[in-house]
Order: sequence, then structure tokens, then C-alpha cells
Amino acid sequence: MTTKDKGSETGLAPSRRQFLRGAAAVGAGAVAGTAARAAEPDPLITEVQDWASTTGAGVDATPYGLPIEYESDVVRRTVPWLTADPISSINFTPIHALDGTITPQGCAFERHHSGAISLRKEDYRLMINGLVDTPLVFTYEDLERFPRENRTYFLECAANTGMEWAGAQLNGAQFTHGMIHNMEYSGVPLRTLLAEAGVQTEGKWVYVEGADASSNGRSIPLEKALEDCMVATRANGEALRMEHGYPARLVVPGWEGNMWVKWLRRIEVTNGPVESREETSKYTDTLADGTSRKWTWVMDAKSVITSPSPQAPITHGHGPLVITGMAWSGRGAITGVDVTMDGGKTWQKARLAAPGQDKALTRFYLDTEWNGEEMFLQSRARDETGYIQPTKDQLREVRGENSVYHNNGIQTWWVNGNGEAENVEIS
Amino acid sequence: MTTKDKGSETGLAPSRRQFLRGAAAVGAGAVAGTAARAAEPDPLITEVQDWASTTGAGVDATPYGLPIEYESDVVRRTVPWLTADPISSINFTPIHALDGTITPQGCAFERHHSGAISLRKEDYRLMINGLVDTPLVFTYEDLERFPRENRTYFLECAANTGMEWAGAQLNGAQFTHGMIHNMEYSGVPLRTLLAEAGVQTEGKWVYVEGADASSNGRSIPLEKALEDCMVATRANGEALRMEHGYPARLVVPGWEGNMWVKWLRRIEVTNGPVESREETSKYTDTLADGTSRKWTWVMDAKSVITSPSPQAPITHGHGPLVITGMAWSGRGAITGVDVTMDGGKTWQKARLAAPGQDKALTRFYLDTEWNGEEMFLQSRARDETGYIQPTKDQLREVRGENSVYHNNGIQTWWVNGNGEAENVEIS
Repeated sequence: MTTKDKGSETGLAPSRRQFLRGAAAVGAGAVAGTAARAAEPDPLITEVQDWASTTGAGVDATPYGLPIEYESDVVRRTVPWLTADPISSINFTPIHALDGTITPQGCAFERHHSGAISLRKEDYRLMINGLVDTPLVFTYEDLERFPRENRTYFLECAANTGMEWAGAQLNGAQFTHGMIHNMEYSGVPLRTLLAEAGVQTEGKWVYVEGADASSNGRSIPLEKALEDCMVATRANGEALRMEHGYPARLVVPGWEGNMWVKWLRRIEVTNGPVESREETSKYTDTLADGTSRKWTWVMDAKSVITSPSPQAPITHGHGPLVITGMAWSGRGAITGVDVTMDGGKTWQKARLAAPGQDKALTRFYLDTEWNGEEMFLQSRARDETGYIQPTKDQLREVRGENSVYHNNGIQTWWVNGNGEAENVEIS
Repeated sequence: MTTKDKGSETGLAPSRRQFLRGAAAVGAGAVAGTAARAAEPDPLITEVQDWASTTGAGVDATPYGLPIEYESDVVRRTVPWLTADPISSINFTPIHALDGTITPQGCAFERHHSGAISLRKEDYRLMINGLVDTPLVFTYEDLERFPRENRTYFLECAANTGMEWAGAQLNGAQFTHGMIHNMEYSGVPLRTLLAEAGVQTEGKWVYVEGADASSNGRSIPLEKALEDCMVATRANGEALRMEHGYPARLVVPGWEGNMWVKWLRRIEVTNGPVESREETSKYTDTLADGTSRKWTWVMDAKSVITSPSPQAPITHGHGPLVITGMAWSGRGAITGVDVTMDGGKTWQKARLAAPGQDKALTRFYLDTEWNGEEMFLQSRARDETGYIQPTKDQLREVRGENSVYHNNGIQTWWVNGNGEAENVEIS
């Protein structure tokens, strides 16, 4: 038992213990937050239920299972006015309903530039060409013969939270912050494949592209390609899903999701960046004076409270309340998260569910009490470089309001006396 | 870049580099293992493919996604002669096709005693009674108000590998070792809920039961209940699946899966074990002399090679070969895995994909060469207590052949010259 574990054994505030002990005592038949039932026995306890007196579904029911019907709202969602073209656009991870750190592939957001393609392993080819000693073509089976790594990383779209540059727009964490997922990848380090081809001295960049019609070409400095990029074939233990690049995608830890090329088909070693459409007219930040910043790859430290939030209101009345959310940084591990309930007047240190991991999601909790007063909830992440997540106003001071990408500003949820939450901005 | 990372950049044996560089060179148009095509250009490289010239599936296609059709063999499977009664029986995780450490809920094995029940959160109740100061009933919403933890643990059925006591029986890692999964759980420490009720001095055990018809009651020493057990509501970030105990199950880290009671409805604090059906006539080990060992809860250190294996033969010919598998211990972290290719005459240290974690799966790899000779593949795990996974013969010397449960013996796959694998035993 660790010291932290002991903490939760004894660390309950007296008021929390009082509350739940009183409200849920068996003798009274009462249940927290439902005082109206206090005088009646609970038939869910006193009567034999159908599910305890008949047999349920057998093991042959679902060779590959799906969530239970009661969780049918925990799905990827689109924003109709944002995604007029369903082929080339985006949907969002239901982060308001998730806990922990792993994102199941089934509800991890999608972003396509020309739709998700169906590519068999047998038809997969990966070419390495350009400034190499020996241009190579790998089949899927070839990839399986190289030493593999396992690493857990977040992937965040550069446009995540992008609509919020103009002020509070979308009323839900899924829509403001749901272009992110976090998975355990298995694959071959890109440096291994590049070493196989033999990078020539003049090679300073790689240009990577996918097998889909968009090709989504991006330039990556050789230094990053050799540091920690992977050609991943599996996520969360199983094959990549079609919509995430089956059978192989590039993993570019900590850098914007657009660079994680799906259905990866070619890596060209070059002596300079290609300056493709996806890295010039798109995925750059236009500043207040109309000029655009070049090469804004790293996703800076960011966090968001996922519950309570507009899609996850407080429904249980006053007393004990768990506030939770997630934090991440493209520059390394999260070292701390602070939470405020009063719009930044006072901050409390959140509890991290586990020590921050390099370029991966960290789950945080604040175990607190709610007396029914309105709250202005915010979270603020810190990473191992010492960087602290800025306010939206601080971002606008530097970048103006012409940007779409790389909005890592502090998010505010206003929670009213009924426990309902709204996306707001405060200054 | 860590030292280990650097290793995979430069650590390829000359033969591996030679092989792949030669075989996959673009100029020759050849691909590893398919020398017959050497003289012809590869149309998958030289011709524009359909998937690169049309748009694919859009983001609205799958609000909750499933694996691509080409992975339709990566599913839970039953063994017909073993699972005559589909309601009360088992299926198996397709571990031969997985990598990494996380098991997706969709293909994580099921074991039911009276079928999987459909229980709404609104109808969920958890009672704590017996030797407590205040008997309590918690709703699902109550559980959500207590401080939560996140932990990744393996769950192994006590009967995993049970058929193999009688010698090699089932021809596939899925069937010999697939009653295991490994997930990230979020939930409330059991000690927190017990503290809320107030355990009396005479309370030494808890008796836990589920809401299904079987109730599957099990006794657990209070010490374990307070140490690391959890009432989990989520796995791998999302709600538990129906077949894994939605909306709440018990997590009993490192201990046999039968104790991880699903649809958890009651926890009674007692002064001794109940000695229920599930812990007397079932889930005990009958020894050679006909007597049964009492209380065999911990799943000892174990490992298995998942590829190559009977369902995952070598299909790519001679040369570089990745051997992979997984290891786990109910007594703590895995500290090492050895692999032999010659039935135990010589052993090599496998590469762990990450340092072993407490009571969680560890992925191991041996990056080697195969010259086409037959192999007798085995893996042997070591845990932080110094315990070393035994041979099946060593287990039988102590326990005879009457057992069904707790077979953690070393598994052998015989690989023939064609790369096909079979389940065999060698002495």
C-alpha cells in the first residue's frame, strides 16, 4: 500500500462521511439525493429482480462486443454546421463521458481529408526514397519482421478548441476539446526503417504521405523522425481501425495530429521541407497582422475539465462532488494541474491519478464539496518544462483572433445552482 | 532518446540488414519473401489505386466503430466441446492476434455462471452489511461521488490453461491461454466504501456477490479488501461492457478472475470465510491424493508466446523473425522473461517492451533469425519476488494430474520447417 493509497482510506472530509453515512443508511431505506424515498423500503433491495432469477446472455452473443445499449450516447459526434462535408471533415471523442486515460478506438475522433479508405494488408506498400543509399519498398509482412516498440501517446488535432478563438462557441467538452485521443501503439521505430534504407548526409527532412486520395503530405525534420516517430500497426492491443489508418499510420509523439499520416505509403528523405498545402495554407497560425507563423508542430500543455461540463451536469444535489478532467503536453510529462471553482480567484492542486507520462494523457481529480453556489470551473496544466497553460486572453494578446489552430487556452465552465454547466468566457 | 531506443537504431544484426535491404530494393521490384515477383514492377507502387483516386468513408459512418472487415478473425471464440452450455460457459481472448498490453473490451474473454445481465445504472444498488457500524446502500450515482483511482491490472480465470494438465490439448494460444485480459480500470477503492460503513473489530473477511442469478459469492480476507481492491465502473476509459459486469464490478488485483465479482450487489463483512460453492467444490486444486488445497487465490507468474503460435504461423520464410508474447504475475511486477527456441537447451533474455508493472501484463519480444529449422519455442517468466515460472512436469510433481485450475506451467509450441506451429509437450 502506497502513501497515496492510504490517503484515500482516511482522507475523507468529515462532512463527506457524515453525508453519505446518513443518506444511504439501510435502515432508513434512503439513498443519497433522493430524500423523498426515505420512508419507503427500496424494492431494488427487498425484492428479487428479474435479472437475478433468469439467465442472461451467453458467451456466443457477441464475438466482438459493443457497449451496452444504455451507453448509446457515448459516441463520436459531429457538429452539423462545422462538418458540412462528411467525407473530409471531423467528429469528436465523447470525452465528457470517459474516465481514465485510454481512449477506446471505437469512439476515438476521426478527421479525414478525403474519407477513410479500406486497404488490405496484402495491398499495403510503404516506400522509402529520396536521399537514401537504397530506396526500399516494404510490405506489411516486412514491417512485422522488425523490432517493435509499445508506447502510449495522445494525438490532438491542431484545430482542437479552434472554434473558441472567437469566444465561447460550442457547448460541451466533446465539441470544444474532443479532437483528441490517447492510445497504446505498437509498431516499428521510424529510425529503424530509415537506417535500413541508409539516410545520406544531405538528408535533413522527411516528407511523409498517405495512400488516400488527399495524400496529406507533411514535412518533418529528420531529427524528430529519428527521435521517437513510429510506424504503428496496432493501437490499444489490436489492429488500427480503418478510420485511424489501417494497416499502418505514422505516430509523431506530441506533434499536431495532421502529421500522424494515416495509410502511410511513402517517406521521402529530402534536404528541405516541401512546404505542402497542409503545412502552408493549412495548419499554420495567422497572427493579428495577417502574417502566418511557420512550423507550429508541438501541441503545448493543455487541460480541460470533463465533468462537470455542459454534457455532464451535476445531477446529485449538494455535498460531495468529484471534479475530473485530463491534461497533456506535447513537450513531455504533465507535472501538475490546478483547478479553480471561482474563475481563478483561488486555485487548488488537483490529484493526478498517476504520475504524468511523456506526451500522454494524464487524468486529474479534485475531490470536493458543492454547496449549490454557482461555480466558474477552470483547470490549468503545467508540464515538465515549467510551461503553464495560458488564458485565452494571454493567447490573443500574442496571436490576435485570426487563428484557427493551436488554442490551448484555459477553458471555463459556468455551473449554475441546478448543476447545469455552460461554456463561457470570463475576463 | 533512451539507451534502449538507441539500441533499436543500431542493433540490427548484419544479416537482418542485408536481408531486407536486398530483398525489398525498389530497383529490383522485389519484396521480402516473394522472390518470384523479382523481375516485375509492383503495380501497387507503379499504378494509381482505386483508394487513392476516390473518396472513402466519411466521419458519420460509424458513431461507435468496429474493427475493419479484414480483421474479422480477431474475435472471442468458444471451444464447442468445452462450452456445451453457452449461458454458463466461457470464450477466449484472441491473444494470438494482439500486441501491446491493453486488451480491447470488445474481444476480452467472457466467463458467466448464469449469463450476462442487462442492469441499468438507475437500477443498480450496492449494499454493505454484516459487521459494520452502519449498513449502507449505494446507488450508482453515490459511487460517482467518491474519490476514484485509475489502475491497470490483468484478470486471469483460474481455469486458464486448465485443459493442459492432461497434456497438450488445445491447438492455439487463444484456447490454451486466452482466459485473460488486461485493462485500465477507474473506480472507487473498496477500502473507501468499507470505511464509510465502518468495519467492526470482529470483521476479518468480506463476502462479495453479484446481482446475476448465480450470485457467484466469494470470500476475501479483509486485508486484501483494504489493500488494493476496487469497485470499478469503467475499463479502458469507458463504461464496463455488459459482459464484464456493467455498471460495476469488483477488481481483485492479481487474484483469480472468479473473485472479480460482476454486477456487484453486496459486500458482507464477516468474521470468517463463507466457504461458498465457488470456493469449495469449484476453484480449488485437487491434489494427487484426492484432497483439495484451500484458498488458492493468487495467480502465479506465467507467460506464453503468442506469435508464432498455432493460429499465428510464420508465413514469411527464413531470416528475421519477431517472437512475441506476454507475461504476468499476481504477486507483483514481471522482472524478466527468457525464451528458448530449442526446448530449453539454451535460453535467451527477451526484451520487455516496458518495465514490468504491478499485477499487469508485460509484453516481451525476442528479435531473432529463423533458418527454417524446427523449433521448440518456450517462454519463462520471472517476477519481483524471485519466483520463476515452472515446467508442467514440476507442477505435476507437486499437484498430480487431478487439477483443473492454476496451471502456470511453461508452454511449448513446436514450429516445423514450414513455419506451422503445434501445441506439444516435451520432457
